[in-house]
Amino acid sequence: MTELAGHLMDKGHELVQRVYFEDTDFSGRVYHARYLHFLERGRSDYLRLLGVHHRELADEGLAFVVRHMELDFLAPAAIDDELMIVSTPLRIGNASIVLEQSIQCEGRRLVAAEVKVALVDGAGKPARMPAAVKAVFD
Amino acid sequence: MTELAGHLMDKGHELVQRVYFEDTDFSGRVYHARYLHFLERGRSDYLRLLGVHHRELADEGLAFVVRHMELDFLAPAAIDDELMIVSTPLRIGNASIVLEQSIQCEGRRLVAAEVKVALVDGAGKPARMPAAVKAVFD
Amino acid sequence: MTELAGHLMDKGHELVQRVYFEDTDFSGRVYHARYLHFLERGRSDYLRLLGVHHRELADEGLAFVVRHMELDFLAPAAIDDELMIVSTPLRIGNASIVLEQSIQCEGRRLVAAEVKVALVDGAGKPARMPAAVKAVFD
Amino acid sequence: MTELAGHLMDKGHELVQRVYFEDTDFSGRVYHARYLHFLERGRSDYLRLLGVHHRELADEGLAFVVRHMELDFLAPAAIDDELMIVSTPLRIGNASIVLEQSIQCEGRRLVAAEVKVALVDGAGKPARMPAAVKAVFD
Repeated sequence: MTELAGHLMDKGHELVQRVYFEDTDFSGRVYHARYLHFLERGRSDYLRLLGVHHRELADEGLAFVVRHMELDFLAPAAIDDELMIVSTPLRIGNASIVLEQSIQCEGRRLVAAEVKVALVDGAGKPARMPAAVKAVFD
Repeated sequence: MTELAGHLMDKGHELVQRVYFEDTDFSGRVYHARYLHFLERGRSDYLRLLGVHHRELADEGLAFVVRHMELDFLAPAAIDDELMIVSTPLRIGNASIVLEQSIQCEGRRLVAAEVKVALVDGAGKPARMPAAVKAVFD
Repeated sequence: MTELAGHLMDKGHELVQRVYFEDTDFSGRVYHARYLHFLERGRSDYLRLLGVHHRELADEGLAFVVRHMELDFLAPAAIDDELMIVSTPLRIGNASIVLEQSIQCEGRRLVAAEVKVALVDGAGKPARMPAAVKAVFD
Repeated sequence: MTELAGHLMDKGHELVQRVYFEDTDFSGRVYHARYLHFLERGRSDYLRLLGVHHRELADEGLAFVVRHMELDFLAPAAIDDELMIVSTPLRIGNASIVLEQSIQCEGRRLVAAEVKVALVDGAGKPARMPAAVKAVFD
């Protein structure tokens, strides 16, 4: 049994996701850009469980955008794999946060990432982080 | 709580999936081709719970391919929506099966589909359906 | 040499697109839902050459949505293939148009599709077709 | 007029690609992971013009895989944009190469990336770079 939006850890968030046909490429493994989808699902569900919803942000003209990513592709995932996406808050700035994320399969780390995310308004200008996000870094 | 691979119904299969950023387009709704991903996840997990795994089929040089689809896009899904993908077996031929599938949100049908799927070998030639698939139609 | 947006035919539109890694799945062929991307690129560039731009429509709160699709997957495409997407207008209604589309490779038809598309406003209500689109059906 | 596979520069490669519906998300801009698709198309077509084809590599059981990426998302792209993907070889190791890549729109850099790519065999073991790739670094 798995909760659809994963679950909060002491410090961070875990989400289980399946590898489907759509995620693979003709090399037989997961297409490298698809790992960014899994990472984004992890971040979205982390926010969701903190009470921050993309749709409500959008109603205020706000959206999270990725500013910087550093990615190590350590080992490949394959069709049918169950992936664990782990997100850990690293540091917070005035207008952005940095998360450490990894994708694991059966206890083995496949992808390691450091991701800098900002909240911006419709004009692309930085917006203030929601209090629920700030609180994670206290 | 949701089982990762959904669950078998009396006749068919149900799977709950979340709409993420990746599924939407700039119209604000889910990109039409993404519904086919959700349908495919439903079919894959239906097969999985019947004991048929893509990876094992691949080891024998076999893969399921979609031959024909008829799709009605009735209403749009949006970010954060929880979608229910329902798959019901309709009929079976010598080398293909036809499924009725739908994508629902809060009891409302968003997409209705009829999907013809065949099992093929590496040369694209039709292969015999696994017994577990045939049994569904009995 | 290829024009980025394809070119208008006597009655319809042709667009050449490459199959990349992203389009394939672990079966070694193009993932079935990706053909819908190619078809949509064909429709978008057809509209573009008729002078109808998604961004300008969006500024008026309008967007094209797919209402119905019937798809035959006749033969698979593979990595590196050059695909020709052919779009032909079939009929026009008050609030929708129907196109015949195909995806070909080296003169062979891989996918045949009939696609019903509507123009809708932000509330999902049908909007009047641009004159440039209507003119195609005269 | 644009060549389908872009063109070789004195040192590197340029490719023009369109932003379609599929590339955008509900924020109205291009989904961040899609930029990796554009970068990969650039690398693939660079290899293609050097005479290295994914399909031929695959016939020998070889495939390029991304090992490491560092990405700066500087400004967003939107629907209908024409993107220029620029790939420049940076350095070559025994079993990997590093490229500098950028995605530009109307002369403005939207994404800057450093990408480490390796050639691996079916077991994931590093394979020797094709001579045509090595020659680029001379």
